[in-house]
Amino acid sequence: MSRFISREAGRLEPYIPGEQPMDMQYIKLNTNESPFPPSPKVVKAVSRSELLKLNLYSDPTCDQLVRAIAHRYELRPEQVLAGNGSDELLSFAFRAFCGEGKGVAFPDVSYGFYKVWAAFYGVEAKVIPLKADFTIDVDDYMDYSGTILLANPNALTGEELPAAQIQRLLEADQNRVVIVDEAYVDFGGESCVPLLCRYDNLLVVQTFSKSRNLAGGRLGFALGAPDLIADLNRVKYSFNPYNVNRLSILAGAAAMEDEAYFKNCTAAIQKTRDWTAKALEELDFTVLPSKANFIFAASKSFPNGELYRKLKENGILVRWFDQDRIRDFYRITIGSAEQMEQMVEAIKKLLGEM
Amino acid sequence: MSRFISREAGRLEPYIPGEQPMDMQYIKLNTNESPFPPSPKVVKAVSRSELLKLNLYSDPTCDQLVRAIAHRYELRPEQVLAGNGSDELLSFAFRAFCGEGKGVAFPDVSYGFYKVWAAFYGVEAKVIPLKADFTIDVDDYMDYSGTILLANPNALTGEELPAAQIQRLLEADQNRVVIVDEAYVDFGGESCVPLLCRYDNLLVVQTFSKSRNLAGGRLGFALGAPDLIADLNRVKYSFNPYNVNRLSILAGAAAMEDEAYFKNCTAAIQKTRDWTAKALEELDFTVLPSKANFIFAASKSFPNGELYRKLKENGILVRWFDQDRIRDFYRITIGSAEQMEQMVEAIKKLLGEM
Repeated sequence: MSRFISREAGRLEPYIPGEQPMDMQYIKLNTNESPFPPSPKVVKAVSRSELLKLNLYSDPTCDQLVRAIAHRYELRPEQVLAGNGSDELLSFAFRAFCGEGKGVAFPDVSYGFYKVWAAFYGVEAKVIPLKADFTIDVDDYMDYSGTILLANPNALTGEELPAAQIQRLLEADQNRVVIVDEAYVDFGGESCVPLLCRYDNLLVVQTFSKSRNLAGGRLGFALGAPDLIADLNRVKYSFNPYNVNRLSILAGAAAMEDEAYFKNCTAAIQKTRDWTAKALEELDFTVLPSKANFIFAASKSFPNGELYRKLKENGILVRWFDQDRIRDFYRITIGSAEQMEQMVEAIKKLLGEM
Repeated sequence: MSRFISREAGRLEPYIPGEQPMDMQYIKLNTNESPFPPSPKVVKAVSRSELLKLNLYSDPTCDQLVRAIAHRYELRPEQVLAGNGSDELLSFAFRAFCGEGKGVAFPDVSYGFYKVWAAFYGVEAKVIPLKADFTIDVDDYMDYSGTILLANPNALTGEELPAAQIQRLLEADQNRVVIVDEAYVDFGGESCVPLLCRYDNLLVVQTFSKSRNLAGGRLGFALGAPDLIADLNRVKYSFNPYNVNRLSILAGAAAMEDEAYFKNCTAAIQKTRDWTAKALEELDFTVLPSKANFIFAASKSFPNGELYRKLKENGILVRWFDQDRIRDFYRITIGSAEQMEQMVEAIKKLLGEM
């Protein structure tokens, strides 16, 4: 840190993204990307004539993209906000709905960025432990009066919380916002989007990075009552109004309109996920039941990061978190069927060498 | 505002971007875009094969882009940070170098976003009036102990402050950061980049939106001592690590490498600017001396927004700010020679009708 840094910035605890090593070509199963290219409609939408318009600002309202999202989810455009990745929108939501006297509660094992944003905005975080089986008990959140933030399916574990449980939280106190981070919902989870017509204290955040094959386009979206979206816009226009570039607006709209491709990709990943979970269980792994595009698995043969290190030596990257409760687990992205077969083979080989 | 909004978000005063009306096709001279398409090298760089990789995250370090910028400015990559527009980087700089006990000083007539970010981060803003002739007197900033933020050439006015004046500020107190927003420097202004080798308290912020014809790509960059850039990265990794998308990284690197195209475009705009200023002066306008891709002009014939309204009726958009001291001025982007001729003709016609 320089001698100029502000006290607030000095107190930050930055997020550490999954590694992107350049030393060799890895099978990358560490950042939950899709193994499939974007929809052919995306490639078509980012045309030469559109590239020639890059001298003009993007539409700060992202109208074309917002309409495509609203149409897909049967909502009105005023219920949709697009962002530079769902990370940006979650950050905006922290500013909009948390602050002095209004903290935020989230699980101890979840997306690691939640505590980083709490520090960024100086918001009091109530970190609530998952149950022993790594599931969320909504009763633990029932009396909390601040904002509630749940990833569903949960980041890291992949476990699903039934929408009816989240509905209980929405119902119990209609003066608090419940933010549901549905980054992974399209791989078999139950979305809270149908609850939006009944609860104006619900904010759903989704991303194009996983099920829409556009991690490199940096696109996310928030869905909620028009008043909540207006609050988020208030933050956006106080931070970076032109937050989504022209090409990502086009790519996102095209991806959102290609429902068939979306269904094919997400179905293939679910099939490969279930195969991978079964293969690892046969190798005596504990695999948490996942509704995401990754699995969270542990093995007595590979404690404390050992599998991460050994697989990396073999050209395969998975993610390991040096964190209490989950130090023996590995978060493994579901890639193509072939990639997962290669990983299972590599693990068998490692087990054979022991 | 919803009943859920945080106190901090309730206090925000969002920025209002230049209008982007969709009701008809305007000659848009209101948001300082380039009238020229991006470099042909940009169109080539955003290739089909790159589009097919959009399922993969962008490089959070933006290595390829950072190297292209570092090479162009004869700096080391550790002295460069890329952002989702220079707006995002200026916002990061507010968090990094301003806060409790460390305010920020900037001119009363400048980029309107500075006061918005001050409110966003709860930073005390010292707003220092420009002199009567709309120039900056650095002596007004000499004793200020917080962070100093100057747009040079100044936003709105287009007036240049010689780098030697900024050097006096850097020299006088080496424990404060001076941020120079050089969004418009490539149209004849004097950059502070050569001072970076001598002052570790200097941060220069530039953009691809004006002189690099990439407003729609949302790209900016900050240049400074490695320690300052590390502080900004600390903020970035606490907010949105994957802040630049894959295609903008490619587009930006290609634009930065096409020096000849850059020189042609910026030279053409300077020539058209000087023609436009002369034409308006002949129509009895007061035109501030501009080193930017816009001019700031007033006319007794069109007080208080009148020219903005009349030109809009005629299909030409310029920007008018309903703000003390500058209510009779118009900020007019320099478009193509043809567009400026059309604007001058339209003004002549309006004057003839009086």
